[in-house]
Amino acid sequence: MEIESLGIEYSKEERQDFSGFKVNPSFIFYPKNEHDVAKIVKFANNHKIPIVVWGAGTSLTGAVSCNGCILIDMKYMNNIIEINDVDWYVRVQPGINLEFLNKKLMEKGFFLPPDPASFFLCTVGGATSNSSGGMRGVKYGTFRDWVLALKVVLPDGNIVKLGEPLRKNRAGYDLVNLFVGSEGTLGVITEIWFRITPLPREKILTVLAYMKDLESAANVIIGLRKGKIIPEISEYMDNNVIKALNKNLNAGLEESEGGLMLISIEEKYLEDLKAILRDNSTKIIIAEGEEAERLYSIRAQSAIALRAEAKNMFVEDIVVPVSKLPEAILRLREIESKYKIKLPIVSHIGDGNLHPNILFDEMSNAQEVFEEIARIAIELGGSVSGEHGIGEQKAKVMAEQIKSHNGEEVLEIMYKIKGLIDPNNIMNPGKYVELAYKLR
Amino acid sequence: MEIESLGIEYSKEERQDFSGFKVNPSFIFYPKNEHDVAKIVKFANNHKIPIVVWGAGTSLTGAVSCNGCILIDMKYMNNIIEINDVDWYVRVQPGINLEFLNKKLMEKGFFLPPDPASFFLCTVGGATSNSSGGMRGVKYGTFRDWVLALKVVLPDGNIVKLGEPLRKNRAGYDLVNLFVGSEGTLGVITEIWFRITPLPREKILTVLAYMKDLESAANVIIGLRKGKIIPEISEYMDNNVIKALNKNLNAGLEESEGGLMLISIEEKYLEDLKAILRDNSTKIIIAEGEEAERLYSIRAQSAIALRAEAKNMFVEDIVVPVSKLPEAILRLREIESKYKIKLPIVSHIGDGNLHPNILFDEMSNAQEVFEEIARIAIELGGSVSGEHGIGEQKAKVMAEQIKSHNGEEVLEIMYKIKGLIDPNNIMNPGKYVELAYKLR
Repeated sequence: MEIESLGIEYSKEERQDFSGFKVNPSFIFYPKNEHDVAKIVKFANNHKIPIVVWGAGTSLTGAVSCNGCILIDMKYMNNIIEINDVDWYVRVQPGINLEFLNKKLMEKGFFLPPDPASFFLCTVGGATSNSSGGMRGVKYGTFRDWVLALKVVLPDGNIVKLGEPLRKNRAGYDLVNLFVGSEGTLGVITEIWFRITPLPREKILTVLAYMKDLESAANVIIGLRKGKIIPEISEYMDNNVIKALNKNLNAGLEESEGGLMLISIEEKYLEDLKAILRDNSTKIIIAEGEEAERLYSIRAQSAIALRAEAKNMFVEDIVVPVSKLPEAILRLREIESKYKIKLPIVSHIGDGNLHPNILFDEMSNAQEVFEEIARIAIELGGSVSGEHGIGEQKAKVMAEQIKSHNGEEVLEIMYKIKGLIDPNNIMNPGKYVELAYKLR
Repeated sequence: MEIESLGIEYSKEERQDFSGFKVNPSFIFYPKNEHDVAKIVKFANNHKIPIVVWGAGTSLTGAVSCNGCILIDMKYMNNIIEINDVDWYVRVQPGINLEFLNKKLMEKGFFLPPDPASFFLCTVGGATSNSSGGMRGVKYGTFRDWVLALKVVLPDGNIVKLGEPLRKNRAGYDLVNLFVGSEGTLGVITEIWFRITPLPREKILTVLAYMKDLESAANVIIGLRKGKIIPEISEYMDNNVIKALNKNLNAGLEESEGGLMLISIEEKYLEDLKAILRDNSTKIIIAEGEEAERLYSIRAQSAIALRAEAKNMFVEDIVVPVSKLPEAILRLREIESKYKIKLPIVSHIGDGNLHPNILFDEMSNAQEVFEEIARIAIELGGSVSGEHGIGEQKAKVMAEQIKSHNGEEVLEIMYKIKGLIDPNNIMNPGKYVELAYKLR
């Protein structure tokens, strides 16, 4: 049988991603190197079989769903190839776990800053394909800001390198950023050079502030912006999230109507921050070291705690300009009233990135609510996705955003680029740009 | 006559860019807004006339050369549309001068960090089209790192927006970075949203260090990297550059065989830096305030001082990995010996970006030497251009770099993207990706 003649380990099984999207591949391949990947891609391209790449299945938008695809599981391609402490990059295979990689980097005094909440589960290949963000995004941006170069297997099975492991390189159009965040629709990433940076030398303090309300949290962020203070981290969780964390993960957090903020800053900004917090919070606690780490670990698990509260959860990922946070919050309250639901909110509030969550057992209009929330972002000049990506789930609202903000021709150019690089449409078809174009 | 029916101010004249490339347009248009630009582009597209956009003509690679083109001069499109001190962006038209913009931003406590040596002449549109760098690149990257969103007139004359004025946005493939650094080959930029950041609060010191030699300067940079110190600025000028500055601009610098480094760092790193400098320099002077500014202004004018030394100058712009700086320097010395020439070197040495300059009155093999230098970068895993771009001058070596490092298919994809967006090939034709593809 032809599959076996490839000489690459494979299996057949159903999977489910972190958000419950079904993954029903015809075969799952476990390549050991880029040449294995190239063989698989050539095979799939010849037979016009869709390819989906699996890192850890932590997509929240159905980006790895499939039915009848070839799934490429990167579990064996998880090596650190080189940590370069002069050129300040790390060269890795895509299947390596992000937390593990950062432990290795920290041993040498460096780190790769973006820290999606799934950092302890996700692979760097997935995070790159998704341009994932996280809590440190407010200071350090998303994965896009840290990818120097890629090796990819193109849909025709050829292995190429995109970009250079250099901070400065003007040789041709930027294809690296085209592939970062392309959700597996343009090729298979087989190696990544990430820029790395030294661990901060400054003393960082974490402030746990119980807020009067979510509006107060928005005011704190606007206060930081006007005060020209860049926090390391600035997170918000509302009281429904805190309750879920206490109930399901024994977080031991104080429950309070206004929810809480976690803000990490350099010590020199502490007095400025306290002044900003004074009118907006009911209580502040300063944490350091292990206690600060524990708080962030709890924050990272908030999606897990919330998922335990209902059979289904839709995780929103809207971004609004920071100046529009107060208005966005009002609009979310209106949706809660209109549909008589609660939308527990977790937020990287410092960069205007809100995750209102829709929890439901049965709810015929969940997708409708989901899209209505996304439209708040569009109307306020924001984005339907800051860091979770588009996948299947957000293609329709992505099309709306682009038509409204950018112009339909922009979506057409994106769609044509997909067709140019993947003419047989084998790379993660039926999602993201292709689906948005069809739903436009 | 049809040109006049467009109702847009125009003229006819020859120009010459900063490096002496000829600009012989059929007409020069002076649009006042994006609608004027759209009219011009539609006209050009209908008649298949090449379009070149002129900011300040400071290209060093022939990126604005033309013969018979329509030149679009952006001198009237030079407004600041909005400075947003909460969302931390500035929205501008492309024709605004970079230094002027930064003065306005600094009045509000912000800045746009990239500072090409032409900052006092160049427009932000040119710097974006070129993804220009500068002295602050070692800490803050190049223009690419600061562009959030663009408005562009596409080659079909349609006005679209690319991206969002947000730090996080996952709606579709990244077309912003495709256009940044595309050297006017994909469309005409009519508005730019730049990310801005607060001026540093920390006290910054500038150290003027006379070096034992260029090799010592490389050792200092490697020392900084191993010490995990990110300088604000780290520049090198060799003694030939210093002589030219003294002679042509009365710089009043001490001449010394080993040349000098200008390093700016936060005060807290001063002792570390001194320790690194100890074995590599003959003398160090600490400068602050106006004296530091004067030194950087002198540094920024080094190309002007060198140009006065000969009828012609080719400015190299190679990048090598920092770890390969010592080897790159050896190879440059070999070229000097082989061709019996001097290559005065100015360098953003902190990011491995070297500008060896070829000065000549008559020199039949100048282009040969130029390309031989570029090949050093290719062989050492670097790039033929860090910040000046490709234009006409570097298309051949860019093709060599991509074939050698990335794979010929990468160049083919770039070429096809150009054809996809600009099917009539009216946008700055015959240069950059298109020319590299033809010379491959």
